Amino acid sequence: MIITIGRQYGSGGREIGRRLAEKLGIPFYDKELIELAAKESGMAQEVFEQVDEKAGSSLLYALSTGSMAGGHFAPLNNLTFNDRLFLLQNQIIRDIAEKGPAVIVGRCANYILRERGGVVNVFVHAGLQERIARAVSEYGHPEKDAAGIVQKIDKSRANYYDHYTGEKWGVAKQYHLTLDSGVGLDNCVELIERYAEMSRKPVGER
Amino acid sequence: MIITIGRQYGSGGREIGRRLAEKLGIPFYDKELIELAAKESGMAQEVFEQVDEKAGSSLLYALSTGSMAGGHFAPLNNLTFNDRLFLLQNQIIRDIAEKGPAVIVGRCANYILRERGGVVNVFVHAGLQERIARAVSEYGHPEKDAAGIVQKIDKSRANYYDHYTGEKWGVAKQYHLTLDSGVGLDNCVELIERYAEMSRKPVGER
Repeated sequence: MIITIGRQYGSGGREIGRRLAEKLGIPFYDKELIELAAKESGMAQEVFEQVDEKAGSSLLYALSTGSMAGGHFAPLNNLTFNDRLFLLQNQIIRDIAEKGPAVIVGRCANYILRERGGVVNVFVHAGLQERIARAVSEYGHPEKDAAGIVQKIDKSRANYYDHYTGEKWGVAKQYHLTLDSGVGLDNCVELIERYAEMSRKPVGER
Repeated sequence: MIITIGRQYGSGGREIGRRLAEKLGIPFYDKELIELAAKESGMAQEVFEQVDEKAGSSLLYALSTGSMAGGHFAPLNNLTFNDRLFLLQNQIIRDIAEKGPAVIVGRCANYILRERGGVVNVFVHAGLQERIARAVSEYGHPEKDAAGIVQKIDKSRANYYDHYTGEKWGVAKQYHLTLDSGVGLDNCVELIERYAEMSRKPVGER
């Protein structure tokens, strides 16, 4: 069973995924997907960190960030770094799913694995105030900036998802289960685990 | 605890709500909301059935359907019948929520009760094939028409919701919990019940 988790920034979706993977004793992938992409491509991880979960910006943008120093990371076939990372992660996510059970956070994993059986797609969100509080307490953003950061990152995630999937981020019908994490992170873990258990039964016995 | 259930046509959301209400021993409201609106306003139920969960169409439309015979149901203050029904159901839903626990299906109940605590908002959807099958088996639509009917009714429900709430129907963040009913109707009942139980605890103990 593969469980993918899309999440609003500051909703606790990543932490829910981490706890769920720990509880089930299966691998957990979030930022690890960038490391793997860097390793596989031989490109610098820092370059990918800049474009992770962002819609394809132009080469000009990459140049302007200084990450192109020496022309070493020139994109192939006019692909942006964003595109390259998406394609690499696409393959990495498929490979992970082949290997066995896992929890995969973000990166359009639900879309990438859409043809595959045995996948439970989850989306986690929360009220804006809760997300702002988490941006401060968990990610250390200054309180005065937190609201802007939360909204900017979510906008970026939505652009990324919509750009690469042609669908709309956070629309219920794309996920088996979506949760307002205000119910509590461990409670979300329990509900996802329960949904996954239910899904393992043959359709006729549900 | 009030549980509201938005649902795609043919997703089984209504049946999930009915079973949930039965299990919890609390009142269930779906088409009952039209009856109540008719009773309260003194208007004919048939008029309301025609505009139930439809965005405000024009007076002309109401005239063309023949439901205006005798000019008896002329709208007040230029409100369409759709608007009148929405406003009546708005008040009826608030009154129901005041009286005690209930399950309320559709009619923007999540939006109408948005300022109120102790409400769990649910949205139920399903794959198109499953919904078509249910349109045939549960609602008796001819197989050749079912796909068109399912999509037309969902479009109408989305228009209705978006028109009266200014929000987007079926977007995860408007609901505490959304479910793909492919997991099984009784399983959905169990998950909603569990979410509601979890929500009853004080925030600090979740």
